[in-house]
Amino acid sequence: MNDNTTAQGSGTDDGGRDERHKARMVRKKEVVDAKIAAAQDERGVIVITTGNGKGKSSSGFGMVVRALGHGMRTGVVQFIKGAQPTGEEMFLRRFPDVCDFHVMGEGYTWETQDRARDVAKAEAAWEVARGMLRDPSIGLVLFDELNIALKLHYLDVERVVEDLRARPPMQHVVITGRGAPPALVEAADTVTDMVPIKHAFQQGIKAQRGVEM
Amino acid sequence: MNDNTTAQGSGTDDGGRDERHKARMVRKKEVVDAKIAAAQDERGVIVITTGNGKGKSSSGFGMVVRALGHGMRTGVVQFIKGAQPTGEEMFLRRFPDVCDFHVMGEGYTWETQDRARDVAKAEAAWEVARGMLRDPSIGLVLFDELNIALKLHYLDVERVVEDLRARPPMQHVVITGRGAPPALVEAADTVTDMVPIKHAFQQGIKAQRGVEM
Repeated sequence: MNDNTTAQGSGTDDGGRDERHKARMVRKKEVVDAKIAAAQDERGVIVITTGNGKGKSSSGFGMVVRALGHGMRTGVVQFIKGAQPTGEEMFLRRFPDVCDFHVMGEGYTWETQDRARDVAKAEAAWEVARGMLRDPSIGLVLFDELNIALKLHYLDVERVVEDLRARPPMQHVVITGRGAPPALVEAADTVTDMVPIKHAFQQGIKAQRGVEM
Repeated sequence: MNDNTTAQGSGTDDGGRDERHKARMVRKKEVVDAKIAAAQDERGVIVITTGNGKGKSSSGFGMVVRALGHGMRTGVVQFIKGAQPTGEEMFLRRFPDVCDFHVMGEGYTWETQDRARDVAKAEAAWEVARGMLRDPSIGLVLFDELNIALKLHYLDVERVVEDLRARPPMQHVVITGRGAPPALVEAADTVTDMVPIKHAFQQGIKAQRGVEM
């Protein structure tokens, strides 16, 4: 902490570093403000988190919490995970009035090794998801690991995109999982590719309660 | 949904697609199981989400929720954001016994345009963060936008890494923000680079209550 600010006004003796910083920040603010002014279309967005890095599902659950903080009702459908209840599930199930939580998968497909059953589970999960996509009282829905169900052709992407397009105009949709198909990326507003730089797993650290990564 | 499974046993008339799928999944399970068996080191991890894409902070808040679901106590320090309370803040402040939430920044630096004040704020925020890093009753801490404070040299990265290394051995740390410095990446266990593929902002959509993206 710096108490020198009481002496001699602003007292910059660092060769104008503060002034250069200020000028740069003024320019940055102008650019950001202009972009905000230009963006005027208010409607629900489709957000996709994909890629091989960690943080895809976490990011989706963070968006659910953000929406809950704004007083919205939310819905969650987990398409693949679910043999063990996750921390997110255990926490969010405490708020059934504002978070409608469904776990439809039965472990990863390499645990079940039964394609017909996986397809049936995905179809049933999409029926629940479609119900949410017809309910304008739900402000944000999270379809966790839907990308994997699409990548493995458990569900038809054209049908999924059609149902997404028919949703209430102000409803936000968050879709997670590796391998988001091009038709879904095309339909989305915001897409982030999560790229792994380093993974605890590679360094001999056990998956642990509380982080599961 | 497919009801053919009742006729003639497994009844694969798709040229062995199910069988090939099963063989692939068996191999995948072997690889995953071997990795899990090899990873035996149980300790707290440092997770970093960085890059220009969306989802860094959301991912951190998702991990807070996951930890809460596992009955852990958590701590949050927001280093830069905070002029407007976010949805995450509004939601998590409802649980003060299990989530110690601090917003230390005062808007983005291009809003404040005062480097000396930003540095003082960052120092004060790090003091709060250090308190959490000395408290073994906190299972997971989130230092949101700490990377930006480091990138702008508001804080010294060597000192930050030293304090992180001295934390309780089972405590998890999640650090978010663009431009994670190399020394911090080196100290981390899991690092994800969030790469923007598409952004609603570019498409003229206003930042909105409930998604803020």
